[in-house]
Formats: sequence, C-alpha cells, structure tokens
Amino acid sequence: MNDRAKFYRRMHDIPESWGTAVNVQSMVFGNMGESSATGVAFTRNPSTGENRLYGEFLINAQGEDVVAGIRTPQPLTKAAREEMGDVSPSMEEALPEVFTQFREVVERLEKHYRDMQDIEFTVEKGRLYMLQTRNGKRTAKAALKVAVDLASEGLITKEEAVMRVEPGSLDQLLHPTIDPGSPRDVIASGLPASPGAATGKVVFTAEEAEKLGGAGEAVILVREETSPEDIRGMDAARGIVTARGGMTSHAAVVARGMGRPCVSGAGEIRIDGKAGEFHARGRTIKAYDIITIDGSTGEVLAGAVKMIEPELSGDFGTLMGWADGVRRLKVRANAETALDAGTARQFGAEGIGLCRTEHMFFDPARIAAVREMILADDEAGRRAALAKILPMQRQDFVELFKIMEGLPVTIRLLDPPLHEFLPHTEEDLAAVAEATGLDPKKLMLRAKELHEVNPMLGHRGCRLGVAYPEIYEMQVRAIVEAACEVVGEGRPAPIPEIMHPLVAKGEEMKFLRDLTDRTAKTVIEERGCQIDYKVGTMVELPRAAIRAGDLAANAEFFSFGTNDLTQTTFGISRDDSGRFLGHYIEKGIFEKDPFVSLDQEGVGDLIRIAAERGRAARPDVKLGICGEHGGDPASIQFCEEVGLDYVSCSPYRVPIARLAAAQAAIGEREKDR
Amino acid sequence: MNDRAKFYRRMHDIPESWGTAVNVQSMVFGNMGESSATGVAFTRNPSTGENRLYGEFLINAQGEDVVAGIRTPQPLTKAAREEMGDVSPSMEEALPEVFTQFREVVERLEKHYRDMQDIEFTVEKGRLYMLQTRNGKRTAKAALKVAVDLASEGLITKEEAVMRVEPGSLDQLLHPTIDPGSPRDVIASGLPASPGAATGKVVFTAEEAEKLGGAGEAVILVREETSPEDIRGMDAARGIVTARGGMTSHAAVVARGMGRPCVSGAGEIRIDGKAGEFHARGRTIKAYDIITIDGSTGEVLAGAVKMIEPELSGDFGTLMGWADGVRRLKVRANAETALDAGTARQFGAEGIGLCRTEHMFFDPARIAAVREMILADDEAGRRAALAKILPMQRQDFVELFKIMEGLPVTIRLLDPPLHEFLPHTEEDLAAVAEATGLDPKKLMLRAKELHEVNPMLGHRGCRLGVAYPEIYEMQVRAIVEAACEVVGEGRPAPIPEIMHPLVAKGEEMKFLRDLTDRTAKTVIEERGCQIDYKVGTMVELPRAAIRAGDLAANAEFFSFGTNDLTQTTFGISRDDSGRFLGHYIEKGIFEKDPFVSLDQEGVGDLIRIAAERGRAARPDVKLGICGEHGGDPASIQFCEEVGLDYVSCSPYRVPIARLAAAQAAIGEREKDR
Repeated sequence: MNDRAKFYRRMHDIPESWGTAVNVQSMVFGNMGESSATGVAFTRNPSTGENRLYGEFLINAQGEDVVAGIRTPQPLTKAAREEMGDVSPSMEEALPEVFTQFREVVERLEKHYRDMQDIEFTVEKGRLYMLQTRNGKRTAKAALKVAVDLASEGLITKEEAVMRVEPGSLDQLLHPTIDPGSPRDVIASGLPASPGAATGKVVFTAEEAEKLGGAGEAVILVREETSPEDIRGMDAARGIVTARGGMTSHAAVVARGMGRPCVSGAGEIRIDGKAGEFHARGRTIKAYDIITIDGSTGEVLAGAVKMIEPELSGDFGTLMGWADGVRRLKVRANAETALDAGTARQFGAEGIGLCRTEHMFFDPARIAAVREMILADDEAGRRAALAKILPMQRQDFVELFKIMEGLPVTIRLLDPPLHEFLPHTEEDLAAVAEATGLDPKKLMLRAKELHEVNPMLGHRGCRLGVAYPEIYEMQVRAIVEAACEVVGEGRPAPIPEIMHPLVAKGEEMKFLRDLTDRTAKTVIEERGCQIDYKVGTMVELPRAAIRAGDLAANAEFFSFGTNDLTQTTFGISRDDSGRFLGHYIEKGIFEKDPFVSLDQEGVGDLIRIAAERGRAARPDVKLGICGEHGGDPASIQFCEEVGLDYVSCSPYRVPIARLAAAQAAIGEREKDR
Repeated sequence: MNDRAKFYRRMHDIPESWGTAVNVQSMVFGNMGESSATGVAFTRNPSTGENRLYGEFLINAQGEDVVAGIRTPQPLTKAAREEMGDVSPSMEEALPEVFTQFREVVERLEKHYRDMQDIEFTVEKGRLYMLQTRNGKRTAKAALKVAVDLASEGLITKEEAVMRVEPGSLDQLLHPTIDPGSPRDVIASGLPASPGAATGKVVFTAEEAEKLGGAGEAVILVREETSPEDIRGMDAARGIVTARGGMTSHAAVVARGMGRPCVSGAGEIRIDGKAGEFHARGRTIKAYDIITIDGSTGEVLAGAVKMIEPELSGDFGTLMGWADGVRRLKVRANAETALDAGTARQFGAEGIGLCRTEHMFFDPARIAAVREMILADDEAGRRAALAKILPMQRQDFVELFKIMEGLPVTIRLLDPPLHEFLPHTEEDLAAVAEATGLDPKKLMLRAKELHEVNPMLGHRGCRLGVAYPEIYEMQVRAIVEAACEVVGEGRPAPIPEIMHPLVAKGEEMKFLRDLTDRTAKTVIEERGCQIDYKVGTMVELPRAAIRAGDLAANAEFFSFGTNDLTQTTFGISRDDSGRFLGHYIEKGIFEKDPFVSLDQEGVGDLIRIAAERGRAARPDVKLGICGEHGGDPASIQFCEEVGLDYVSCSPYRVPIARLAAAQAAIGEREKDR
C-alpha cells in the first residue's frame, strides 16, 4: 500500500487491515469506461486546513480502487496536479463539465453542513453521483485553520469556531512532532506521559544528562524512574524515558511541567546500568546510541526520525482570543522557575496557581543548608540553617513576582516529608557526609528516624509547619520581603497567595493563619511597606473537603489538590497503582485513569461539597484547582459546572485549558437555555 | 503522707501536691476541744460500693488535719473500728448523739440526691454542721454495686442504674489490676494501649516468648514494635511493651484483641538486642529480669507488684442484663481464633463482626503455601498453592461457625498486601529460602518487586481479588464448604457474611459480588446443601462512603472500617502519626487521637453520608462498624445517633460496648422526649 493510500485510509477511518473489502454503495459504477470515474474529496485540505478543494479520483475505477493503493489516483484540480508534478490529467482537465458541477455541489454541501466535508462520489458515463458526505476528519492544525476560516467567512460564529477544535489536540501544535510520513522503528512502548517528540543520545544518569546537555548535546535520559534529585538532569535532556511509573509519576509530572516529551512506564525496557545499556524486544541499545521518543504515543524509536516543528500561526492566536472572550474560568500555571513562569505567560497564563517551594530546596546550593536544618538538634539549630536559605528563597520570589507583573502568585509552603531531602542509599549518605562534613553516623541515624511506612500519609505538608513553625515562618518572611522589594523598585505590586498544604482541620488552619499573619505583620512593619497578601489552603484531603466551612473561617482561598485528593479518596497511591490499575482497566472497572481525568462522581462530589460548604462560610472564598486535572478538558468542564474561579496546570497545557474553559462556558450557557 | 490520707485525697480529687492548703469552709471550728471534731464520710464504701456508712474523723481538729496525714483519723462507726482493730474510739462511740443525728442526715441526703454522697462535716462543741455534700467519686467496682443496689432499693430506675456506670471503667473489672496500695517503681512510661496488668520475665523476641510461655513461664515481650509474625509470641506472653507505635499500632490492636495488657510507644526505652537488655531513665533491665506492666496507665514497673484479680460479680451480670434490655445496637466481636470467639461469646457478643482471614495465613503450617502462591509464575501455580490452603482455611471456619452456633459471622477476605507475607530482611529471606527450598534469588526478586512506596494505599484489599480472583474464590469456597459441613452435622446453620475489603467503586463491588455468587453457587450445587449467606463490603475509603449507593446495589451490608477510613479521610498513616500527633495535641489542634475516638465531624460525616446513600439505594442494607472505634463509648454513642445496626469490637471490649450502647439508646430516647 502506498503512502497516499495510507493517508486516505487514516483520514477516512479505514483500518489498514481492511484490505479492499471497503463497502462503498455500488448501485452506480465508476468502471464503465473512460467517462466513468470514482473519487474522494475534502472541501478543504484536511492536513493543513487550506481552503482549496482537495482529493483524488480514478478514471474507470470503483471506490475501493482509490483506497486500495493498487492504482495511483490523480488529483482533482489542475493546480494540484501541477504542484505535484503529475502527468496524468486531473479531474478538472479530464472531466471538465462534471468537475464544474461537482465543485458547485461540494460548495453547497459545505455551506449546508457548515463544516469541511469529506465526500465520496462516482461518475457513471459522464453523470455525477454523490455517494456520501460527512464532516471530514482533520489534523489539529487543519481543525484550527478551518474553524477560524469558517468563522471569518461568516459560515459559523466565533463561538462555534471555538467549539470546533478539540482542546487536547492543541498539544500537537505546541510541541515538535514526528513527521507522520516517516517510518517508525519501534523498540519499546510505554505511556504517552508528556507530548512532543525528541531525538538524542541515550544517557542513564541525571549527572550525565546535565553534563552533555550543558555542553549542547541532545540527550534522552533513560531511567528506571526519576526522583527530585534528577530534576536538573531532566531539564538538560531533550526527553525522558522511564521503565516504571504511570501518567502521574514524578517523571511524567515534571516533564509535562518542563514541556519535555516523556514516555513513562515502558515496562519492556530493562536497564543494565553497569553495562551501560538497555534491552527491549530482544534488542540492545547502548549509551550514546541515538533514539527518538514520541511522547504523544508513548513510543521509543531507534535512530533519528524526521520532525515537524510547531508553528504557532496567526490562526492559533485568533482562536485563543475568541476563546478568552467567552470563558469565565481563569487559567493559571503551575510554575516555580523563571523559565516555567515565562513559558506560562507566553502561553497566556493569568497567574501562578501553584508554586511548589520544595523544588527550590533541591538546588545544590541550598540542599546543604536544608540538610543542616534537618539534622539540627533543636529549634535554634534549625533557625540558623533556615537563615542561610532565606535570602535565596526571597530571591526566587523576587524573580517570580517580576515575571508575573502583578498577577496573582499562589505559593505553597514546604510540602514533602523531610526524608526526601536526605540521600537514600548508604553510598549516597557516605558521599554527602564526605562532601558536606556532616557526621555520617548522625546523617544515617536521622535518615532512619525519618523513614516512614506510608510517606504519602506521613509527616509532610502543614504538619511540618505545625511541628517546626520556624520553617514556615522563614518561607512567609521570604515571600513578604520579596513582595516589599519588588514594590520598592516601583514595579506592579505582587499579589502573593500564601498556601498551606495538607490541612485537615479548622484548628490547624487557624494555627497556620496566625503564624502567617504574625510573620507578615512583622516584616511589613520592619520594612514599612504596603503589601496585600492572601492566606489559603490546599483542599487535598477528604476531611478538608467535608469540613471546608471550618477551613474557610481562616482561608481566603482553596486550591483543590486533586492529585492527593484522588489518592486519599480512592485510597490509591499513585506510585503503587501501576501494579493493579491495569487489571482494573482490563476488567472494565475503571474506564480511565482517575489520576489523568478527574473522577467526577467520587472526588468530584467531594469538591462540590467543599465548594458549597466553603462558600456558605465565606461567600467570596476563591476556588481553584491545581492538580494534574487542571489541564484536562473533561475535568475543566467539571470545574466550570461546579463554578470554580480558576484552573491551574502545566505551562504547556495553558492554551489547552484556555480553550477547554471556553468550551465549558459555552456548554454551560447552552444548558441554561 | 500515709496511705489512708492518699486514698482520701484521691477520692476527693485533692492533688498530692496541695499539701495542707485545702480550703474547707471554716466558719465553724472542729478544734474547740474534745466535743468538737471534723470528718469526711461516704454514704457507701467508695472502694467496694458496700452499703455501709464509711469515713473518718478527728476529735479536736480542723478539716485539713483529716487529709493532711499528720494525725491518723478514726473510723466513724464502731463496726469499722473493730474490723480495723483500732483502739481509739469511733465517732459512734465518742460522740453517740451527734453520730445518730449525723447518720439520719446523711441517709436523708442520699435519698434526696439519689446517689452515694461524699460529705464533709464539723462538730463544734457537740453541734453538727454539714459543710458539703456531693455525689461521691468511686471505683468501677463500687460504681457497679452502688448502681445495682440503688436500683434494687428502688431509689433509682434500672435505666438510671445503667447510666450510672462509666462504660470504659468496666475495663478495670475485666482484667487483673495493680493493687492501688502497692508502691510503684516506675522505670518507663508509654501509652495505655491495652488495659490490665501483668508481671513476668523480660524477653526480647517472639520466639523466646513462645518457648518460655509455652513452658508455662510468665513473660513480658519487649519489642521495638511488633509485626504479624510476632503474633504467636504475643499470645504466649502475659503482656507486651513496645518502644514505638501508638494506641493503634499493631501491638496495641493485637494485644487488645487478645486481652493482653500492653504499653506501646514507651519512647524512653532503648532496646539493645545484642546485649540482651533495655535502658530507660538511666536504668538497665536485662533479659529475664522481672517487670510489671500496667496497661491501664501505660507504666512499666520494676519487679513484681501485688495484683487484684478480676471478679465478675453478680452485680456485673445484673447490670449487663439491664443494659441489654434497653439497647438497640447489636454488639459483635472482632475475632478469628477459637479462643477469641469463645471469649467474645462469654462476654456476650452477638456475632462476629470482623474475622480477619489474613491472621489465619501467618500460621507456620500455612505460610509456606502462602509464599508458594506469591512466588507462582502464573494462575495455575497460584491455584495449586491455594489448593493446599483451602482445607485449613475451611477448618478455621468450621470451628468458628460451631462456636458461634448460628450467630452471624462476618468474614473479611484477604486484605494486606502480599509482601507482608514475605520475610523482610535479607537474613530472613535466606533463612526462609533454606527452610522451604524456595529459590532465594526468586524470593528476593519477588520481595523487591512487591515493595510499595505507600503499602497502605497499595495493592491490597479487594485489589488482590480483582488481580488474582483465584485467591478470593478459594476463600469463598472455604467459607461455603465449612457452612455446609456444619449444617451437615445437624448444628445450627451458620450465617456467613462474606465481606470484601477496600472497595471504592460500584463496578468493583459488582465484580466481587459475581465472583462470590458464582463460587458459592458451585459449592452449593456440588454439596447439595442449603446455605444462606450475605455479600457485603467494608466502607473504609472516602469514595466508598460518597458512592455508597453504587456499592449498595451489590452489597447487602456495609461494615465501616473506621481505622482505614480515618487514615484516608485525614491523610494520616497510623504507623507514622507518632511523629507529629504529639505536636498537634500539644498545640490544641487535636483534642483526642482520632484513631481512638471517632472524629465525628469529619469521618463521622462520611459515615452519615454513606448510611443515607446506602439506605436510599437498598433500604434494608445492614450497617455496622468494625474499627477500633467499635469499642469506644463516645463512638458508640455516634453509631446510635446515625442508626447503625451493630458495633463490633475486641472481645474484651464487648461488655463496654453493650453498656455504652444501652446508654446511647437511653440518651437518644431522652432526646426524642
């Protein structure tokens, strides 16, 4: 089968396995001689969206001949034939009268159905028969252009144009993609964890990724799984592959945030770190071999493959503008680095919905002070170590506030359990002790003491702030000092939203609110500056949702942390769900992974309860969502229904969220009618 | 201060630190000569409840002299003086006229207040002044006797008698206790994890506990913490001490179930396993040294201490009978062994509310087959191993059904993650491989594969039954075959209630229901027997509560697993909460440990929602609770309010639950009036 036939089949939803058994209505015959023909057409180019009749036909042939790939069909128009350098005449040239009639009919059909049409036709002895017309399948790029063009031509409204583009498909426009015409030598397959494609040399450690990546080499980081220490290596790599972990594993979440393509949970891959190679499907790929990953399909390919670079055309901007005009939900981004914040703004984010301060603690310049704090014997020791972190943390916020130019920035105080900041293996412990001069025995003992059976449900989130208020005091101080500094420079006043994670009780929120206000007041008095800030909480535990009224007494905003809320509501650890979710999906118990698309019945009901109870206690409580679901169109639809104020997602998903929010708003308005 | 003074102080709520600064109204003076006196009295004995005037006085003295312990007070009555062999005259002898008047007054006071009175009086120059009367504090034993006596005397109703005894105090009557008069040489202090007291030789391993305990020696097992493998050693010990873990740690839960006293989380204790000793408060206790533990106070004492054995007197039976007459909630026990089931029935349990089948898997005779199943490469291998377990598992149920004589028995199918059945350390792995002939490498690899980041939220509960249906099929088969066998012997037909743990979705419940019915039907047809059984689910995940309607479609009963429901609702791991709950209680954020007394606002609201939604979908769905809270009076009160059908608790808490349920029923009836 030739490529053109394959393309038709794809556009017509015809599986390749179907062979020639395509059932075209065959009461008329296109194989009755040279004045007979059969063909398929799109009223516009389904690949680019260009407004030009597009299609192919065969003289003296039946419908299946066009798609079977045995004879090569000819283009419909003269212009197309000339562009392609074809010799055989186009339909326009071979059957000019029929063609003129055909062109009129298809134009009428497009106007009637108000969308690009996919048409099958037969000419029997000079007479045109229309066999079928339907809305044509199209690429993301074409969908965008067709929608904008149809609206510009007055055939549909701008709102209809907004409804015509599948938000998730924008991913194809925002990342490089593999040329669909290129052959794919698949060596392993995993989950499509972060979209886009990348080619590079295989490396097996974050350190090497950082070294080679820093030297300008394109590398793909291949790991069993990733952890926070790998972040700089992940950032330096063009793409990431992991053998374990799901759609919401560390690798997947971080890669999406960074806009790096990622294939996660490629269980076929067995990494042999010692030999410096990995094995999959009986093949061996060595370090520095070139591979390509397709994060949109989850495939890992051998060698380099031809790429198509993204092109954010004028149509994209036009459609997003229309979307912004109708949506009610604000769209923010989850970002903590200057790079992410910049990307987020470029993609139209209206603020930061989640700045995870712990990401700032892994920086090599700081981790030593963080560890010193963890090892401190008492509060005084912890405060001394925190004093070293304060200026760096403040600088982080200064930078973010400047980039965000007065847009709201929600900053989540330290969340992960402290043991995440300590090295995990005895070797690493020894190395860290050696490098930092910390007592290795003490380091080992403390790591052992901090070990938890279920770290997800352990000493983390605001439980750190309750046990060691000095940590949160340092962070609040850094935030408020940074805000004062930015205002002092005459820049737009930041709106810091100080967010406490993992709150479960009203009393807890009260304690945290008092701590925050007390610290902020001190700084404001010290600096003599005018700063507005808000204090709020994550709602990521079922109890927080149930007792939202208690929390709202001291929280000006809620951000639904749907990752953790899904974990606790289902009692499913994301990190461990790989073992059984497969059985569940196979047996039809789960339709989709609840960590990807919000479980609206269960987790969603808790969100609904929290929104109701929170608003009953504080009518103007601001409500947002900052879990992975904040970038999922179906989940955004739900956020609109529940009446949240904003969604927050990875920078690269901001356009998707903007479009999905617009569609949700239009959908809700339709319902009201 | 002498013992008698100490006793008075305790009964009068006077802290020992108060010295003589007791503020008695002193407008009259008992120190005006030999016809003056001062004293305290109880209308009945506050220690035993005996209906006899009880108290002491001093001639020519002020109130504080009686409690200061400088002069020794004399008894009030001649009989008491004679019994005690005192020489100095009693009040009855020294001031006969005043005494007669006093006796009349106190009798009138008791009748008026309809309760045992605690009275202070002064005689000034032959004239009696009543200084104060109030309901007297009393021991659990006295409370019981006084309540039963007052009702028998017609002073109060039987319902009032039921309300007069604090259910939690019954613990003192059901276990040996330390003689309050004995000196206590406290060497460490922890949590009062399981009531009662025990004396024995210190041992540090479960194996040694089993060996010495089996040989009839009294031993106390002292461990860092316990795990399921320690169960037989715990059972062989008289009492258990752990250095780590809370009120709901493995040690605490198992000890309460077994009725063994336990002190958990005695953080002061540092165990040196190699040296065979532990250190606490600067002292060293070696293996085989005698210690005594008080599981009601959490104290660990050096040496042997005098004990008071429990005496389930006729009054106990009388009061429990009255309680049973008014309560609505049924009371069941959590039990899986014949011993526990027998204890439960003896204490009046009306069924088994939770039989944890995993406890049956740790038996040394079975663990090999269990491990064989875990290591099997495929379903056939698992089925072969399960076939070995089936007859043993069936025999477990035969035994339970016989003991329970037709009462309902709720059997929970396998719940813990499979890695709990594998050895944890490399040494143990090697030993197991050696002993069983299993491939050590394979064992190691499988243990590594099964390792989970958050086992609490991992591959456990019905997720095992979904992934490996053959496990649950074997268990259902064992249950139904056992029921057939018992019926075949002409015994009362058992009512097995087959319970699926950790269900979160309606589709999951449907799958499990189908599996259960299909297997049961096969067995019933094979055996040609008539068996009724029910299929139900734990409600122990927030989502199960929220979607209770979906679950009820295929569940005939719900059992609220409030241990796990508390963990997931709060996002707090019981095993890890020790790190921060202290800070929370210290800062007033938690009033009580939510794992001990049900969090009625949060977890309770989910139970309320589940009860409503479950009943809406299936009006006759049976509702019970089987978490630790099932034996907590405040939580039982809540269960009555929500209208559950039964509570289930440790066998030793059954009487407490019966009394608490009666009080709750009376309380609810009062509210309705």
